[in-house]
Amino acid sequence: MNNQKSIDNTTFNDLVLGIDLGGTNTTFGVVDHEGHILCRGNIPTSGDESFENFVVNLRKEVEQVMHASIIDFNRLKAIGVGAPCVNYSTGVIEGAVNLPWQSPIPLTDTLSRVFGKPSYSENDANVAAIGEMHFGSGRDLTDFIMITLGTGVGSAIICDGRLLHGKRGLAGELGHIPVVHTPDARMCSCGRKGCADAYASARGLVATAKELLATTDIDSMLRHVKEFEAKDIGEAAAEGDEVALETFRITGEILGNACADFTAFSSPESFIFFGGIARSFRFFEKPMRDAFQKHLLWIYNGQVDFRHSRLPLSDAALLGAAALAL
Amino acid sequence: MNNQKSIDNTTFNDLVLGIDLGGTNTTFGVVDHEGHILCRGNIPTSGDESFENFVVNLRKEVEQVMHASIIDFNRLKAIGVGAPCVNYSTGVIEGAVNLPWQSPIPLTDTLSRVFGKPSYSENDANVAAIGEMHFGSGRDLTDFIMITLGTGVGSAIICDGRLLHGKRGLAGELGHIPVVHTPDARMCSCGRKGCADAYASARGLVATAKELLATTDIDSMLRHVKEFEAKDIGEAAAEGDEVALETFRITGEILGNACADFTAFSSPESFIFFGGIARSFRFFEKPMRDAFQKHLLWIYNGQVDFRHSRLPLSDAALLGAAALAL
Repeated sequence: MNNQKSIDNTTFNDLVLGIDLGGTNTTFGVVDHEGHILCRGNIPTSGDESFENFVVNLRKEVEQVMHASIIDFNRLKAIGVGAPCVNYSTGVIEGAVNLPWQSPIPLTDTLSRVFGKPSYSENDANVAAIGEMHFGSGRDLTDFIMITLGTGVGSAIICDGRLLHGKRGLAGELGHIPVVHTPDARMCSCGRKGCADAYASARGLVATAKELLATTDIDSMLRHVKEFEAKDIGEAAAEGDEVALETFRITGEILGNACADFTAFSSPESFIFFGGIARSFRFFEKPMRDAFQKHLLWIYNGQVDFRHSRLPLSDAALLGAAALAL
Repeated sequence: MNNQKSIDNTTFNDLVLGIDLGGTNTTFGVVDHEGHILCRGNIPTSGDESFENFVVNLRKEVEQVMHASIIDFNRLKAIGVGAPCVNYSTGVIEGAVNLPWQSPIPLTDTLSRVFGKPSYSENDANVAAIGEMHFGSGRDLTDFIMITLGTGVGSAIICDGRLLHGKRGLAGELGHIPVVHTPDARMCSCGRKGCADAYASARGLVATAKELLATTDIDSMLRHVKEFEAKDIGEAAAEGDEVALETFRITGEILGNACADFTAFSSPESFIFFGGIARSFRFFEKPMRDAFQKHLLWIYNGQVDFRHSRLPLSDAALLGAAALAL
């Protein structure tokens, strides 16, 4: 016991709680200084109760999970939480339509009070980038742009070792900068034309594959399924399917052009790709690099590389949230 | 004398020296906390001597100018200097082709030693933005992008109250992001096509006016001069010249589209226009605002305004350099 206590008193053995507050489910993990998730759990993000009661139940669940892993609750020194629409400076959630409580939600105040630990918050879109900076592919970097390729195309910008927030925390909407400028560029869900989101999101990838199927005779396993998703295109590419590979080639070229433009903003050392589609990195990496090199302003030559996230998707949000608290 | 000393001891009365180290001329000013330039002077940036001797001569000149203004040299608490190609973190100039000394030049080390005051440096392209943030149109802002419209189109990005540097200090080359995407877009001096620099620089403005003169019959005072410069277009616009006004309308539309894209990067509250062409702000402001509004991603609606610099051109660099030291 004395031994245990002396270990607990060292900073190195302090633990933090990372929380990913989602619309339907809230996951948490107890994380050490090296980014190991020592135990984890989740509870439904239920609106049947007040936010205060939800946090009380969350604490009970955290205590149970920690107890089952024989980790003393008192070793938790701080809490980091990623949540939608949270103002990182006030820790208050405003206008999050996917959460079951009415805004404003005093997120960090309630967590701090109920858990008795200091709490720090960040927009969920940014949390994974912070995780990547502390524990993932960005550990050696002070300047990078993380591009999330998933349901949509998101981004987070780390410049001079800091995450950019901008006015009202709205920096880094690179997915909605037009990057295809031909007259027949796709309409984007945002109402603009030719955005990266319309091409490199899951929906955009499927649209590109369907266009190829409709306009060419290339044989493809994708012809033989009624409906397919981005994941299926990745699997087809892994089996050498030409339509799937061409889909990634087109996507890579668009991303490479876009990244060349983005470089002139914050002069990153690296672009880190994250999200479901980033699992197919090897299929779009080369066309992306080639297009990037062709379009890059010369002063940046040889200074920028491309990486994919090495954190498991499900861990990135927890680790990022934990990193806020470390 | 005692009285004077007690005033000198208060922080409020401390003064700083702002230096603008240029290729042919080096100007300096003694600046107070409110951005008043109490006295100023300049010496040629001569390469006939070592950098060390140049700084010794600079100190002599500063002392003389301060003496003539009856300001005690001891009131100077620090030095800020803007210079080309300076690494802001090391204070060393590397590869500045327009300076007469061989790189690396230990800029801040030499200044600190010769003057006996702490010295801070920043790239000259960024210094004016810092001046604007502390003493100019950006005083009330934490997030803005300064666009310099001069010989070229430059930019500096202030996000979350800090100037972005990026890897090797190369952030903010917005003038070299393609913003015109038509097949006949102009080649830019950087080798890319359709950059803002090819349209909104002094050279770009003249090219647009010449195109209008060549392709229309509109009467213009610019037809009656053999050669004209951007300054002449501004003067013609002030007299209601239609070709000059149309030149600014086209330029404004291009800038508005570009700024809409730039907004999705750092979510600024404002764009501040600086440089010789910004004096004609009133002629391109409306078309710029209209194009901006038309292209802006909706989440930024109503959040961004356009301003022009209110600092005299010749003062901005000195005040920015001084602000580094404050």
